[in-house]
Amino acid sequence: MHDNASARKSLTLLGLGAMGTALARTWIATGYSLTVWNRTPARAEALAAEGATVAATAAEAVAANRLVVACLLDDASVGDTLAEADLTGKDLVNLTTGTPGQARERAAWARERGARFLDGGIMAVPPMIGVPESGGYVFYSGSRALFDEHREALAVPTGTDYVGEDAGFAALQDVALLSAMNGMFAGISHAFALVKREDVELADFAPLLVSWLTAMAPAAHQTAVQLESGDYTQGVVSNLAMQAAGNATLLRTAEEQRVSPELLTPFMALMERRVADGHGDEDGTGVVDLLLK
Amino acid sequence: MHDNASARKSLTLLGLGAMGTALARTWIATGYSLTVWNRTPARAEALAAEGATVAATAAEAVAANRLVVACLLDDASVGDTLAEADLTGKDLVNLTTGTPGQARERAAWARERGARFLDGGIMAVPPMIGVPESGGYVFYSGSRALFDEHREALAVPTGTDYVGEDAGFAALQDVALLSAMNGMFAGISHAFALVKREDVELADFAPLLVSWLTAMAPAAHQTAVQLESGDYTQGVVSNLAMQAAGNATLLRTAEEQRVSPELLTPFMALMERRVADGHGDEDGTGVVDLLLK
Ligand SMILES: NC(=O)c1ccc[n+]([C@@H]2O[C@H](COP(=O)([O-])OP(=O)(O)OC[C@H]3O[C@@H](n4cnc5c(N)ncnc54)[C@H](OP(=O)(O)O)[C@@H]3O)[C@@H](O)[C@H]2O)c1
Ligand SMILES: NC(=O)c1ccc[n+]([C@@H]2O[C@H](COP(=O)([O-])OP(=O)(O)OC[C@H]3O[C@@H](n4cnc5c(N)ncnc54)[C@H](OP(=O)(O)O)[C@@H]3O)[C@@H](O)[C@H]2O)c1
Repeated sequence: MHDNASARKSLTLLGLGAMGTALARTWIATGYSLTVWNRTPARAEALAAEGATVAATAAEAVAANRLVVACLLDDASVGDTLAEADLTGKDLVNLTTGTPGQARERAAWARERGARFLDGGIMAVPPMIGVPESGGYVFYSGSRALFDEHREALAVPTGTDYVGEDAGFAALQDVALLSAMNGMFAGISHAFALVKREDVELADFAPLLVSWLTAMAPAAHQTAVQLESGDYTQGVVSNLAMQAAGNATLLRTAEEQRVSPELLTPFMALMERRVADGHGDEDGTGVVDLLLK
Repeated sequence: MHDNASARKSLTLLGLGAMGTALARTWIATGYSLTVWNRTPARAEALAAEGATVAATAAEAVAANRLVVACLLDDASVGDTLAEADLTGKDLVNLTTGTPGQARERAAWARERGARFLDGGIMAVPPMIGVPESGGYVFYSGSRALFDEHREALAVPTGTDYVGEDAGFAALQDVALLSAMNGMFAGISHAFALVKREDVELADFAPLLVSWLTAMAPAAHQTAVQLESGDYTQGVVSNLAMQAAGNATLLRTAEEQRVSPELLTPFMALMERRVADGHGDEDGTGVVDLLLK
């Protein structure tokens, strides 16, 4: 019994970059027996002083524990790192960002080598790790049994959200959220460009921008309902024809302020295509369909 | 005294479209004596039944009250509507969406005709009007004296935010927020396109998307600080080089999911230009400068 319990409180972590190091600290602080490995050994020194066991090779690190977490640069570095390791009977959790396809291939690759596999997409930056109030979490997908068995350990650094047996789903939702964020940041960049050369106090403007985006983001709930039902006129408040007409004011303002409209025009073009196709009475949801090839 | 007080509780509203009608109802409900005019008279009938006085012409409506609010389609319709009206001594509040330049020209035009002028940018949709919890508000800029004098009446339909004597500032900030929202909606569209053909429950996905965008929007505060200081390396958590490297995963995922990357690529191109220009250690803030012509 004692052995089992102590085995349950130990794991291996491969990769001690900014993210790996932040993860490692939370497990050490919570009393886990942690074995670490990093390609550049110097990055493991501080953690060794904090109580981590440093393995000489990735294969040795993998041999030390059943639960093996990888947080490396990219999928190729996962392949490189694990090339010589014996994965038989291991529970491999991959927190390396990749595409859904890479996660699915890595899952098959791990299964062939006798390991259970769980992929993770980290929705947090290092300062959010170990800080529950930050709201950071990790999307997990792949082996449900692995997730259930190691739930406690996985919940130490950050919140967890298991999204399905398909190993690609964590990466899919991770990338979807990051892509949406990129769009938002593009919009924020344009907004700042519009006001930057004017006598507008940016410290007063930013909170207005944040509140507005926070108030408008929930429009995504209605988009989801409409996509599920296929009826894009459901609950429309400002129809696409009105919105598209409003684009002229946005473009004219960009011109007045001598700001390039390049971050706005691709979306406007799709809105206009939907209107031209006879969907002016709908919400903007149909733009999603125009993106599908 | 009594006459003054009753004069203060009356106003004229020009334009009874979706927004004008929503505004009108809040003034009637709060006991204001409201005179309305709409180009198509039929749209005034319901409001007449609710207690509004319907004027036969816009000039008559303007003559009825000192405070005149216009909520029309666009700036040209404001010019059309007020062409025959005597604006001497009037307080004209223009809630018609337009560009900063249009607001400035309209302010000069109103002053020439003997009126004080306040421009407004409505950050709300009609269902949010008269609903303080909705968080909707109007940006106001132009005559501070007008704003102060009619503050109570202006605060009836929605919150108010006075942003400066420059009549163009309300429109500028209105359009900046709408532009940022367009970017966010573009990102949301891409995100939904990525997951749409997969076995992902959209009703579960939407709340994750909303929380993520809500959690990440406050990055705009740091962008403002960096733009004010000119130091874009201040407080950087994920530098631009790292972010730009991550774009490859976003693009590859789009390709795997057969989703056009057209809504993401313009922003990525600007990120890469900053990195190529030697700013890889900064935040993405420098993209703002690339937009300025
Ligand atoms: N940082 C964030 O904000 C953040 C947020 C969400 C997700 N993530 C994801 O977390 C993962 C790690 O990110 P990070 O911020 O820790 O990155 P990082 O600081 O750049 O560290 C990269 C790590 O990968 C190792 N590595 C690179 N190539 C390797 C190879 N061929 N073989 C073995 N090891 C290799 C590096 O080892 P050396 O020390 O030897 O170079 C280092 O440990 C990435 O997939 C990233 O997308 C990061
Ligand atoms: N609805 C929203 O969600 C929303 C949100 C924020 C801001 N706004 C702004 O509020 C303003 C009004 O919007 P709305 O939603 O009420 O629009 P709407 O429902 O389309 O109504 C347009 C109004 O303008 C009038 N009009 C159009 N051309 C005219 C002309 N040449 N001369 C005189 N009157 C003319 C229309 O009169 P007829 O009835 O005779 O056509 C109608 O009263 C717009 O500037 C809009 O951008 C709207």
